[in-house]
Amino acid sequence: MGKRKKGCFSYRNFPYSALNTDLYELTMAAVYFEKGMNEKATFSLFIRNYPPRRGYFVAAGLNEAIDFLLNLSFSPDDLAYLESLKIFKSNFLSFLEKFKFKGDVRALPEGSLFFAHEPLLEVEAPLIEAQIVETALINILHFQVLIATKASRCYHAAQGRQLIDFSFRRTHSLQAGCHVARASYLAGFAGTSNVLAGRLYGLPVYGTMAHSFISSFEQEIEAFQAYAEIFPERTILLIDTYDPLAGARKAAQVGQEMALKGYNLAGVRLDSGEMASLSQRVRRILDKAGLNQTKILASGAFDEYKIKQLIEKGAAIDAFGVGTKMGVSADASYLDMAYKLVEYAGREVLKLSPGKATLAGGKQVWRFYDNKGRFRHDVLSLKDEFIPGGKPLLKLFLKAGQLQLPLATLEEIRNNFFLEFSKLPEKFKAIDFKGPFYPVRLSPKLRRRQKALVQLVKKKELGES
Amino acid sequence: MGKRKKGCFSYRNFPYSALNTDLYELTMAAVYFEKGMNEKATFSLFIRNYPPRRGYFVAAGLNEAIDFLLNLSFSPDDLAYLESLKIFKSNFLSFLEKFKFKGDVRALPEGSLFFAHEPLLEVEAPLIEAQIVETALINILHFQVLIATKASRCYHAAQGRQLIDFSFRRTHSLQAGCHVARASYLAGFAGTSNVLAGRLYGLPVYGTMAHSFISSFEQEIEAFQAYAEIFPERTILLIDTYDPLAGARKAAQVGQEMALKGYNLAGVRLDSGEMASLSQRVRRILDKAGLNQTKILASGAFDEYKIKQLIEKGAAIDAFGVGTKMGVSADASYLDMAYKLVEYAGREVLKLSPGKATLAGGKQVWRFYDNKGRFRHDVLSLKDEFIPGGKPLLKLFLKAGQLQLPLATLEEIRNNFFLEFSKLPEKFKAIDFKGPFYPVRLSPKLRRRQKALVQLVKKKELGES
Repeated sequence: MGKRKKGCFSYRNFPYSALNTDLYELTMAAVYFEKGMNEKATFSLFIRNYPPRRGYFVAAGLNEAIDFLLNLSFSPDDLAYLESLKIFKSNFLSFLEKFKFKGDVRALPEGSLFFAHEPLLEVEAPLIEAQIVETALINILHFQVLIATKASRCYHAAQGRQLIDFSFRRTHSLQAGCHVARASYLAGFAGTSNVLAGRLYGLPVYGTMAHSFISSFEQEIEAFQAYAEIFPERTILLIDTYDPLAGARKAAQVGQEMALKGYNLAGVRLDSGEMASLSQRVRRILDKAGLNQTKILASGAFDEYKIKQLIEKGAAIDAFGVGTKMGVSADASYLDMAYKLVEYAGREVLKLSPGKATLAGGKQVWRFYDNKGRFRHDVLSLKDEFIPGGKPLLKLFLKAGQLQLPLATLEEIRNNFFLEFSKLPEKFKAIDFKGPFYPVRLSPKLRRRQKALVQLVKKKELGES
Repeated sequence: MGKRKKGCFSYRNFPYSALNTDLYELTMAAVYFEKGMNEKATFSLFIRNYPPRRGYFVAAGLNEAIDFLLNLSFSPDDLAYLESLKIFKSNFLSFLEKFKFKGDVRALPEGSLFFAHEPLLEVEAPLIEAQIVETALINILHFQVLIATKASRCYHAAQGRQLIDFSFRRTHSLQAGCHVARASYLAGFAGTSNVLAGRLYGLPVYGTMAHSFISSFEQEIEAFQAYAEIFPERTILLIDTYDPLAGARKAAQVGQEMALKGYNLAGVRLDSGEMASLSQRVRRILDKAGLNQTKILASGAFDEYKIKQLIEKGAAIDAFGVGTKMGVSADASYLDMAYKLVEYAGREVLKLSPGKATLAGGKQVWRFYDNKGRFRHDVLSLKDEFIPGGKPLLKLFLKAGQLQLPLATLEEIRNNFFLEFSKLPEKFKAIDFKGPFYPVRLSPKLRRRQKALVQLVKKKELGES
């Protein structure tokens, strides 16, 4: 395959480097190391607040996060780089050389629904290990939750119409494009245009044709005919390069030519213009030509809002190519996800920063259902409490760095999402959701302990009594 | 270093796979292949419109894009995957086995400023090569331009105060985090917290401490003292875990203890609260303790708007940690970047889709300057025109797949940005820019040719005369 040129500037071969971290994780670790502070710490990863119009989150990214933890290390080159910074002492670098993640991880299975303040994942590990993995754990889980949640909203808006991920060209990096393909598939999409994601995750891949394909031929209809000749069983013609109705008439002609040869024109694609009436007119052109089986696919700036609007206007669209706005979660491009120390060396801890106060202690989430099996409310408890009548949601995935449960396949995760989503009361799925929020209560014990601890910390740190 | 576990679900070792593409690029390529259509094509990569409040773009990502093109191939496993799809014929797969990019690339040097409709890059290559690289080229350049542009706005707002990239935990993937660190550095940031990006791109790395560091100690001041002991030359104390003013007083005490040992407390960090008055009060506490050299660093939801607002309010902040909102370009999380066929086999082509019409033909951008050396206007011409008095901006980087110019180092790129930014008239840098836009004119020849071609295409495709 030829020798690969060494590039000095690209991200590659580093996915499991423990350098995927913020510098302060390492400087803090160095202080812990010098001070002999490496007792068991519990960190809780959760989302502080809902972004606008969101009333739930879809758990996603756990397989990737666990894969990262299981394979994490500092390579000799990583260590040489750290040494070159002249910040760290050699005994600490020797410690990093042997670094492996040997902690426990409890988490929500992917595809589950969860709510603000609920831990998506908790790490219980020697302090240094738990600290160093902070940046990467947030990064991996934040992005897949963000996209799975956004995609689930598109899935809800589309009311059963097929959705394809078309976002690869404008996701935030190539790696992001693969994660988007995965996260949107697990939240109800039918597949992706992203070929690498197809290979990596076994996703169904879909494609049509670009405007450049049309214009590289002397005439639009020649382009249609050439495609139909080479791919008669998977032809979707892009009809808006010059004029969508003229394009639809040419597509109908090609569809009839295909029918004579025993083939079915699979679809046409609209990528611009006012699609509600346009799609209806295209539908009539196709139907008149006897092409009732030919689907209309639409693409171009779609998201849950535009999908909902077009369906309400009666658009004759069978499938949507959903691109950039889903792939960057454009209306809410980040979540307020945090990873906070809640317990160290058996002592529950918290922070009191304005607007960012945390709940101390390792936790469990208990879900309660109504008599139709729908979510009624959740209770957030301390980790070792038992809350009768509730279902505990966090499961132990890693114990002392060893996998305890087989990781779910993507199909299992997707089925879990469908099941969970069917149990979420409709009001929380509203595209323009404004609250009231799904009820998450604190257990009496958690509430009491939190109150006592806040008083203790205020007394100790602020001299308040 | 131990054997790495094979994961079935992660993005790795695939950065140069030609599968980093949309399926339609490959199906179109298969049709071109069958039809013997592989003459020279020119594709132009440009941004159609400005997102809200933007009046310019910063060129970025070219080194990565060229690295991608130079190393691109289909591996045996990639080809086996494509074969498994049962879409492609074996003679086409054999063709892909030998696939290399052997085309020409003309582009704006990184760090340059450019404007809507102007090509950032043009590819001239056999049609199949030029088509297959579309998705990855847009992906790579889109993201780095997006972030460099956003970062340049923060740089402008900060009026010389130091900016550090703190975004790694919430960028869209780990790879995105490294690209953000690079793109923000080239557009004026001083460095990053991202250690891997530090290693990859030779960036200065910075770090302070987290709230977890504070709370892992019994008392806040113990945490401060421990850090000062281990890193006396680089101590920045996070003071808002429990109460920022109480934290500032403890930091001042530690700073005085450090001074007795001959060290200088480098800084304190504020991460929450109303920072204008808070920073002034912290400044007074530090000054009163004789710590006039100790800097105040602020972090927490910063972007160009919040930076500008706090500076206007007289905040006593010396440096900003700028995180999520820059790293996802939250107020404009994507650009309307496109890669369009403009010429095939010597024939100029275009599309007429509503709102997405393109200008035919390969192009050059000519910049004109006023007598103070500032940008006055640009002229967009056909590639081979000469526009007297203007400076041509697109340079030939690849010819027949071979590098023609040494790729600039990141320092050179950053210096180019500083120079270019100094020449952009202030009105286009406004944080709340609303227009009028920087003037980009079409050359008379381009205008005439475009008009004639639109008429020709309308006649041919729509039967208009």
